[in-house]
Parts: sequence; C-alpha cells; structure tokens
Amino acid sequence: MTNDRPVVLLDPHPRHTAMIFNPDQLARLHAMAEVVTADAAGRVPDDIVEAALPRVSAILGQTDLPAERIARAPLLRAVINVEGNFLPNVDAEACFARGIEVLSVAPVFAVPVAEMALGLALDLARGITASDRAVREGTERYGRAGCAESVLLSRATIGLVGFGQLGRALRRLLEGFRPRLLVHDPWLPAATIAEEGCEAVGLDDLLARSDVVFLLAGVTKDNPGFIDAAALRRMRDGAILVLASRAAIVDFPALVAEAGRLRIATDVFPQEPIPADDPVRSSAVLLSPHRAGGIPAAFHDIGERVLDDLALVLAGLPPVRLQRAQRQTVGLMRSTAGRSYSKAEAAKLAAR
Amino acid sequence: MTNDRPVVLLDPHPRHTAMIFNPDQLARLHAMAEVVTADAAGRVPDDIVEAALPRVSAILGQTDLPAERIARAPLLRAVINVEGNFLPNVDAEACFARGIEVLSVAPVFAVPVAEMALGLALDLARGITASDRAVREGTERYGRAGCAESVLLSRATIGLVGFGQLGRALRRLLEGFRPRLLVHDPWLPAATIAEEGCEAVGLDDLLARSDVVFLLAGVTKDNPGFIDAAALRRMRDGAILVLASRAAIVDFPALVAEAGRLRIATDVFPQEPIPADDPVRSSAVLLSPHRAGGIPAAFHDIGERVLDDLALVLAGLPPVRLQRAQRQTVGLMRSTAGRSYSKAEAAKLAAR
Amino acid sequence: MTNDRPVVLLDPHPRHTAMIFNPDQLARLHAMAEVVTADAAGRVPDDIVEAALPRVSAILGQTDLPAERIARAPLLRAVINVEGNFLPNVDAEACFARGIEVLSVAPVFAVPVAEMALGLALDLARGITASDRAVREGTERYGRAGCAESVLLSRATIGLVGFGQLGRALRRLLEGFRPRLLVHDPWLPAATIAEEGCEAVGLDDLLARSDVVFLLAGVTKDNPGFIDAAALRRMRDGAILVLASRAAIVDFPALVAEAGRLRIATDVFPQEPIPADDPVRSSAVLLSPHRAGGIPAAFHDIGERVLDDLALVLAGLPPVRLQRAQRQTVGLMRSTAGRSYSKAEAAKLAAR
Amino acid sequence: MTNDRPVVLLDPHPRHTAMIFNPDQLARLHAMAEVVTADAAGRVPDDIVEAALPRVSAILGQTDLPAERIARAPLLRAVINVEGNFLPNVDAEACFARGIEVLSVAPVFAVPVAEMALGLALDLARGITASDRAVREGTERYGRAGCAESVLLSRATIGLVGFGQLGRALRRLLEGFRPRLLVHDPWLPAATIAEEGCEAVGLDDLLARSDVVFLLAGVTKDNPGFIDAAALRRMRDGAILVLASRAAIVDFPALVAEAGRLRIATDVFPQEPIPADDPVRSSAVLLSPHRAGGIPAAFHDIGERVLDDLALVLAGLPPVRLQRAQRQTVGLMRSTAGRSYSKAEAAKLAAR
Repeated sequence: MTNDRPVVLLDPHPRHTAMIFNPDQLARLHAMAEVVTADAAGRVPDDIVEAALPRVSAILGQTDLPAERIARAPLLRAVINVEGNFLPNVDAEACFARGIEVLSVAPVFAVPVAEMALGLALDLARGITASDRAVREGTERYGRAGCAESVLLSRATIGLVGFGQLGRALRRLLEGFRPRLLVHDPWLPAATIAEEGCEAVGLDDLLARSDVVFLLAGVTKDNPGFIDAAALRRMRDGAILVLASRAAIVDFPALVAEAGRLRIATDVFPQEPIPADDPVRSSAVLLSPHRAGGIPAAFHDIGERVLDDLALVLAGLPPVRLQRAQRQTVGLMRSTAGRSYSKAEAAKLAAR
Repeated sequence: MTNDRPVVLLDPHPRHTAMIFNPDQLARLHAMAEVVTADAAGRVPDDIVEAALPRVSAILGQTDLPAERIARAPLLRAVINVEGNFLPNVDAEACFARGIEVLSVAPVFAVPVAEMALGLALDLARGITASDRAVREGTERYGRAGCAESVLLSRATIGLVGFGQLGRALRRLLEGFRPRLLVHDPWLPAATIAEEGCEAVGLDDLLARSDVVFLLAGVTKDNPGFIDAAALRRMRDGAILVLASRAAIVDFPALVAEAGRLRIATDVFPQEPIPADDPVRSSAVLLSPHRAGGIPAAFHDIGERVLDDLALVLAGLPPVRLQRAQRQTVGLMRSTAGRSYSKAEAAKLAAR
Repeated sequence: MTNDRPVVLLDPHPRHTAMIFNPDQLARLHAMAEVVTADAAGRVPDDIVEAALPRVSAILGQTDLPAERIARAPLLRAVINVEGNFLPNVDAEACFARGIEVLSVAPVFAVPVAEMALGLALDLARGITASDRAVREGTERYGRAGCAESVLLSRATIGLVGFGQLGRALRRLLEGFRPRLLVHDPWLPAATIAEEGCEAVGLDDLLARSDVVFLLAGVTKDNPGFIDAAALRRMRDGAILVLASRAAIVDFPALVAEAGRLRIATDVFPQEPIPADDPVRSSAVLLSPHRAGGIPAAFHDIGERVLDDLALVLAGLPPVRLQRAQRQTVGLMRSTAGRSYSKAEAAKLAAR
Repeated sequence: MTNDRPVVLLDPHPRHTAMIFNPDQLARLHAMAEVVTADAAGRVPDDIVEAALPRVSAILGQTDLPAERIARAPLLRAVINVEGNFLPNVDAEACFARGIEVLSVAPVFAVPVAEMALGLALDLARGITASDRAVREGTERYGRAGCAESVLLSRATIGLVGFGQLGRALRRLLEGFRPRLLVHDPWLPAATIAEEGCEAVGLDDLLARSDVVFLLAGVTKDNPGFIDAAALRRMRDGAILVLASRAAIVDFPALVAEAGRLRIATDVFPQEPIPADDPVRSSAVLLSPHRAGGIPAAFHDIGERVLDDLALVLAGLPPVRLQRAQRQTVGLMRSTAGRSYSKAEAAKLAAR
C-alpha cells in the first residue's frame, strides 16, 4: 500500500460496516482505496478523523464536518451519508464552495417503498387484510356482497404528492395499470412532470380528483402538516390514501379521524414505536409499522451505489447513483416527527 | 318495431339483467335489437325460447341449446354465456358447423383477478396482512428485524403457470417491476411467449427457478391436481405462491401443508363457503374468500363487451371483445372443485 | 415411417420449399410429419394431391381445394397459405363447417412493413432522401434554413387507417415517440382500440387532425379507392402520408397530384413494375418499389410460424402464430391492383 | 416596474431573441423579470453588461464572464448558454464556488437528433434513399432481389456509444423495437446503464457485436478520433453505423473509406459546408448536411426550458430542464472539428 492510493474514511455509525458492505463489497472497497475506520462500535473517534483529514478523499458516514475540518481536508471530494439523509453536522455550503459532493444513499429506498405503497393501495382497493381477518374470524362474505366495495387501480385516477425518486419509482411500477396520473410537486415545472406521462396539478385539485392518493413528499421547513383536515376532506368518500414518506407532512390525528370515510394506510407514525395505547392500533387504518424501506435488498443496494459513486468520484467524474445534495434545497430538509394526538383527539378516536 | 330488426334472446339466469346491463347499456341493447326475455326470475321458459328460435340472431345467457334447437334457429349468429364459462348444454360443435359464435364474458375477469393476484403477492413479499395483525396485537417489530424476510418483486424471477387472458393481464401489470418472467403453458409455442417478453419453460423448471409463482391455469380434463405435493416441493424455501384461478388445479391439502415453508395466498378453495372447521382458516396461508373476480368493475365490463360484440356480430363481423370458444379446446374445459382434505390431513393440519 | 405419422402436403408454388424452410426448419418439418411434395417446380400435380387426400392432415400451399376435395380429406385439419393471403380456390366455408383451419402467413410481414413505414415517415419528416440528393448535387443548405420544414414524430398526432396486425406492429414501434394515436378501423369497437392506447375516430376526423397518416388497410370488396381526392384534401398542408398496404385503397392519381402540398411516400403502386413513363417516377413522392415486406427476416419467420402452428394443429390445439381466416370476413378480401392514371392525369402530372 | 423585480440580462448572440423566444414566451419572460438587452444585433455591449452586473440574477447568452465580472454580480444565480454548449469565456469554477448555475440548452436537441439518427438507421437498413434514387433512374429491382440486403431493427443488437441525453432519448425511441442494447460510456457505472435496460460493454465489444452502432458521444479533450480505422474494422460486414454527434470523435477519412463494407450515415462533417470537391459527396455514405438538431421544434423548446428553469432559479430552487455544467467534466468538453482528409486519402476516395 503506497501513499498514492486514495484514502477513504469509513464512519458508518449508526449503521455498522457489515450492514453497508457485504464481504464482496468490502473487498471491492479495499481494492479501491486505503480505508481508515475504527475497530469499536460507535463513531470513529476524533483523533482518527483528525489524523485522516489531510489525506482523505472521501468520507462514508455521518462524521461531523464543520467548515474548519473541511478546510483541513484538501483532497476531500465526497461526503456520503450512508443512512439516507442530509444532516446539519456537515457544512454543506463549505463543501459546495470546494466542489465536494454531499451524497446520500436515499435512492436505495425508492423502489422498496414504492412497492410497499402499491401493496398497501392494492390491499385497500380489494380489502385483502380485512378479508383475511374475516376468514379467520368466520365472518367472510362471498359473491358480489363480498366485494361490492372493491375497485381497480387499472385506469384509475392516481395522485402522487411529491415526485422525487420515490414518486418516480412508483410511477414506473404503475405503468401496467395505465392510470391517469396527477402529480403535485412545487419544485418541478409542469413540463418535467409531463415528460413522465403525468399531469401537474395543484394539491387541492389532486385530492379532489384522485381515486387513489399517494403521499410521497419529504419534510421541509415549509410543509409540516400540510396534509391537514381540510385537505383530507377534499378527498371523496371511499378514496384510497397511502402515506409512505413521513408522518410529519400529515396532521396525523386528522388522518386517523378520516379512516372509514376514506380507505387509509400508513407506514409511518408520529411516534415510533407506536405507543401501546395509541388509538390508531384499533382504527380502520391499514397499519404498517415502518417496514417499507429498510429491507435487505435496500441494504445490499447501499453498498453497490456507494462503491459505484466512490469509483466515479475518485476518477474525477460526477457521481450518478446516489442523491446529490442540492445547494438550493439542502437547507430546507427536516427530520421532524409530526404532530401526535391531543388528549381530546385520542379519547375521541378511542371511543369510535 | 318492425320484423327487420334483429331479435336477441336475453336469458341471464343465474345472473339478472340488472347485473349485466346498467340502464344506459340496456337502452343501447334495445336500440340495437328487439329483446325477447322473461319477466320473472329464473331461466326464460321453454315456450318463449321455442317461439323466439326462428327469429333469433343472438342468445345472451345459458339457454339449453342442443343441436335440434340450433337447427330451428336459422338466423342465429352468436351464443353469449354471460357468466364466464362454456357449458355443455350448448352443442358447440353444432354451432361451429354453422358458424355460430360461442362466446363468454370471461375476459372481464382478467384484470380484476390479475390486480388481486399482484396484491396478494405484494402482501406476502412484505408481510402486510401479518404486520397489520401484529400492530393490532401489540407484537409488531421495528427496524431491520421487522422486515428481514421482506423481498422485492422488482427484478425478481416470476413464474406464470397459464398464459391466457389472466396471465397476459398480469404480465402487463408487472411491466414496471422489470421482472424476469417464466411462463409455462402447454397450449402455446415458445415464440408466442417470447413475443410477450417471457421465457417459455417446463413446469418443473418454472417452480424451481421462480421467486414468485402465480397459478393462473384453468381446469381441463387433463390437469386436475397437477400442482401436487411433488411440484410444490420443487419451490424453494420462502418462495411466494399465489393461487388465483381454480382450486382444482392444485392438490389443496398439499398446498396448505406447505404454508410456512412457502409464502402462500389463495383466492379459491375446494369448498366454498369454506367449511367452518376447515384447517386452512387458521393456517399461515393468506386467505381471500373468492373475491378476485366478481367486483363491480367486472360487471360493468360485461355489459360493455357483450354490446360491443353483439354489434359486430349483427353487422356480420367477427367479435373481438369476448372469449371465443375454440373448437379444439372447448371440450377440454371443466368446472371441478378440486380435492379437499382427507380426515387424516385435516387432523394433521389442525394440529400444527 | 409408419402409417401413424401425420401426413403433410407441401405445395409451395409460387414460392419454393427453400424460400419457406431453411434446412433446420425442413428437418423439423420432416420430424413432425410425413411430407408429400413434388420434385419439380410448379404446383404439386393433381395425381399426387388426390393420392394424398385420404391421409393428409395439413396442406401447406395454394392447392385447389373445392368442397369435393375437402370431402375426400377426412383427416384434414389445416390449410396454410404460405404466400400471405386467402385465395378463392379454397372453399373456406367447407373448411369452417368441418373445423379445418384456414391459415395465412401474413403476420410475418407486419413488423417488416411497419419498420419500413416508420422509416418512410421519418424520411419525409426530416427530408433525408431529399437532402442526401441535394448534397450529391451540391445544392444542400445548412443551418435553420436547411431544416425549416423538419418536424418531429415525438408527441405528434398520428393516424392509423387500419388496425390489424400491421397497425398494431406500427403502434408498438411508435411507443417511444409518445404520440397521440388516432385509429380508424370499421371492424373494431372503440374499446378495443382504446385498450391499445389509441383513440377510435372516423376517417374524416383522422385525416383532418393527423400530422402523420399511415394507410395500413387491406383491400376488401367495399373499400377500393376509399382514400380519394376528397379524403386527401382533408389533410392539412405539409402533413405526412405513408401508403404501406395496398395501392388499391387509394385513388392513386389523386395521391400523386397531392405530392408537394402533402409529404407522401408509398411502397405500393397500381402497376408493378412501375411503367417506365409513369409520372410518379419524377414526382415529389418518396418512392419505395414494393420493398417493405419480402425481406429475408420475413421469409425466415414464415418457416417458424408454419412449423409452430403445424405442431399445435397436429396436437389438436388451436393455432396461434398464423392468421386465421375469419368466417365473417374471408369472403370480403380482395387482391385488386388499384386505379392507375387516365391519359389526361398522366399528362398533367408529367407537365409539373 | 420596481427595483424588487429580478433582473435578467438577455444577450442571445449568435442567436437572436426571436429565435429563442416566440412572442408568448417573451411575454412570459417579461412577466418574470426586468429584461436588460441591446437593441442592435451582436453581443450586448460591455457598458450595458457592466451596468447590469450589480443587479442581475440571471444571464441568458454567451456574455464574457471572467471571475472579476462574476465578483461584481452578487445576485447572479444562473448563466444560461442558449446555443447548447459550455464556452471557456465563462469562469465556471468561479460560478461553482458561488453556487451560480451554469446551464445549457443542449437537452432540446436530444429528441430531434435521436429521431434523425433512427431515421438514418432505418434508411440504411432498408435502402430507402438508394431505392428512391433507383426508381428515379429506372433501375429499381422488385421482389426478393430488391430487398435481399434489408434487415430489421426489431430485436437487433444495437450499440450506443455515449449515453447522455441523446443516447437516452434514442433508447426511448427504440423501445418498440425490443432491441438488445449495448452501451459504452466511460462516465457511467454498469448499474446506471442496466437501469435503463441496457448492457454496459467495452467499446471493442460493442463494435464487434452490434448490428447497428450509433455514435452519440460528445468531444472531450481525451477522445478526438477514438473511432479510428482499427475500431471501424471491428464492425462486421454490412453492419450499420450512424454518426449523430460530432465529426471529431471519428477518423473521418477512415469512416468514408469503410462505406460500402459498412452501411454508414452521418449528419456531421469535419468541414461544414462540405467542400465542393469533398469525396464524401459521391461516396456510399448516406449524407445529412448537419440537419439533425436545429429544427423548429428544438428552438421552440429552448424558450420553454429556459423560462421553466429561470422560474425555478429565481424562486431559489434547482433547475431541472436544462443541462447543468458538472464541475468535474465542464473542463473536458471541446468543440473541435475533427480530422479531414489528407490529399492522398482524398485522391484515393475520389478514385473509387
């Protein structure tokens, strides 16, 4: 090993190296660079980080990177968050000024979450979970009475709220259903949405017109709770609503209150684990306890994408497989939990 | 109404006219032809049928049509079974000799059943029903432990047993998943299957190689129980199996016995309603009580397709929207129920 | 070779055996059946045909088959025209009464003709042939002036007149262009056309609205010359018109007269070879001397499809790879040449 | 008009305002910003530029922007080259350090060039231009002899050299042909190429395996002439080669020398206008005098994309419809013309 090999700092906490790289992937990483990491669990200690800075070309993890540290890393070309978000402990602006790529593995979750979202929608459209439960309880119904509420997704009007990687992955899965697709995404011009075969519409219009609504938007400083009671009321009786991104974009108690009139599924909750006495547990909402993204296939994909982009970055080329932080929007992202029930709301829901 | 208008005999039993035609569709039917039908429920009485035969151009229903009746209907061009099958009370051979089309509304069920089949597969792949149940019971798990068994359908190897209308509808729904598709259908050459982007394979090969198997074949005189215990054993641990066509093609007790090793869902059962003490009710099988086909959208579609093809037939053109009985295969179709459990099997399953 | 092997009469005239079957395909044929044929060129002599009738299961070719011959062929299950049409020397009605399939290899031409039709349309849209000629003559123009008339097919409104195998093959090729597709086909209901993502419209509407019109209809007893001068006038200035099926569906002199106002290409002509003094030779029409269908790939495909369907038919199954004559429409097909120029028209066109 | 409106400097030379914006688009621009421009043709004079710098939010054009000018434009957020390239008169590094977007309208040319490239390939595959010429000369051939060399693109092996916007646009157009797609692009990992349904391969492998090769790569400082005589020799006899990006990536004399053995089309030439005595004019190459990109639809699209991205940039959001200069690669781009013939080569080609 000579000094000419690029140096990569591997600081995977709160993940572990073995979660990100399988043995083959780890071998590929070592073939590509000299890897500096810590033996013990937890973050790589500061002394190791500091010692590596002068030589490091890429950092994999959530290492603190204030401007002064970045200044001490003259070879640094990329910071890759291996958990799927952009944290404020990295001075993104200092990175951008230097042309250091700030990357996230978020794209690995797009297809897994999209498949789950579609599965939840089909479940609501056809009453899959409900009728399995009925058979186990001996209350199932047959014939037309049994499926009088069943609807098709094929040729339905489907609204996507948010059209980032997740929205696009879901659009692709929906191709075979030949839906009419409405998209609301305030960061995208209508023409970009039209290029994907979708119609750009306002949020109110989307909610009122859609047979099925997928909530796929991330949380920004501007949008917590933007799917509120008034928004939900715009949806028509029996319409399907799947929450697949972040609980914080929804007024969650209002959502639970609409279950029954609407067919609702969610994979995310304001508090996780869900409190034992949370009324949602016995509600009509189809409940998926945050199981959409973190599946084995996603973790395998993290290793692949990190290595692919690391190879590009070390070769002086732009990364293409991870999400690149955008100078304009990186500061808007939030990781808030969303509003939970007031006592009154909890009591009212529990009484239903 | 003059004698020049074509005459259609409407004999919808065991359905009712209102199940097949909504008011607009019924008006369209009356605009197209003089409609002979019965006021009361049940089959159109023989005297009305006999009186209509000399003038009738098309029969909608399951009227008995032995050769001698067909001979008395010189204008008859089409017999349309509005329930979705071909019954032996129509002398199909006598029809074919005369060029009378024997048609069924079966295509209306293809998309509804395909969507249900996909929904069941996604449910099994992600544990949707099971984890909803867990939340209700307070036993849900979070994080990687919660979805360690979850798999993607995207880019999976998916096997379709049977590639008629249902198989093709499902193939279309799966487009966005970019799967590797294996097809087993002994009535189709490999090139026909390849034209749809699928690979023709033998049944054993399909079962051994597939991550997900959809059973979509109809019952013929040759295939009852062809998915037997040996066939099921060829599937690998954790593979997904969805039975969406007829219970009779499977050795059903053997299927239930594999639940757990395989992830299994079924929409059909050897006895329906499912007996109260049927061990399947408490098995690991995902249970859908015959709810895949008969949904409102399918019934709406019956009216549309019958009217479209009736218009073509009355204009002297070939029908294109309904299934045409094939001279070579109409005699092979069966409507058998499938094998149920022996007492020993039921006891063994109940003891699990 | 025992008497139990099925017997196939191979009577390929006006083609030759070697045009239809390559050596591998011929071996496959011989493995499948006892083949009766003639050594010399031309039709199989009557004595050989007559001798084979009692034993023959399938006839490949254009053998005369009046009802009395069919009656002498009790095992006959299929008659396969290897040239691509249905000729009146086969008593189709007698075949249908017996359940004998009357088949044609026409589907092999669908993709080759569709690709040529698209190539001709792209040529007209971009002036490919014209600008190659200009470079050779030293008169080419550069920059915006050089392509001021150029148009895109992407997102264009494209009309398909006729939506059989050829129309469907072309629709598939056009997928990537995301066009708005209008279809006129009087034999198909709107819903069938909509299932393929197209809009069913009347002929006049199609001609008036389309940026590009493909003429893909076959000739029937009802439609010779239905694309007449009045129809052509409905198209807007600069619109693209590609004639890819049969010259007889067009008033050909009127077509040539519109060249210049419209951008026109044709692969078929009322007289072939085109007369030496035909004014079309020096017209603005893009000229393809009947080269769309009969390419090597099509001939290879003939062998494949014939063998695939022969295997099905001999196994008692319905054929799926060839075109099946339809009882309702087989009598409507024609093979007429189309109207050519009057002397006055020829003179007028020559004078342009 | 108040000082609060953003200011946009419009400096369209060598284009004109009317080429970039139609009247509706111009109105949309004026509604969005205060527009500073020059009345006369040519570049906006320096004094106007300098006066605008303190207030300008975006510059549309090819204005000289050395670092010192950028430093005097504190509000500047985007520089949009309206001709489709990145020129060295903009100090891109200074822009990147500040987060100023450097954008190009190049994406508007992707679909127009892709359609032309496909049209040229279909022309070569079917001999469209050649057979039109033959009919005009009275030398056309009919029947199988006339199209013995014709090949299909459907299911062909097609190689794309370069997989940027143009390559992706062409891939999309090719969908309906169900090709096997090989891609060579040294800036992309295999997984990115696989996501688009293509196989990443080395250049030599691509050239040797492909039935059709599209040359779609831009010129960088590393690749002039990389498609040289040795590369061309790897292609098999009769293979199709379409040059649709830049003449400089090819050893052009070697390309012309291969015409005949290969089927070759080109839209670009080392010298444009093509010299009057250039031997390519009478060669077997299909000749398109740089007509692929600059069509009316592309110019319309420039206005749309510029306005869409300007709106995003002024709202503080990332642009999505134009090409963003990449810090890693912007310095690699070149606009060289490509090697022309030596006298000996010209003489040799002329003698053929």
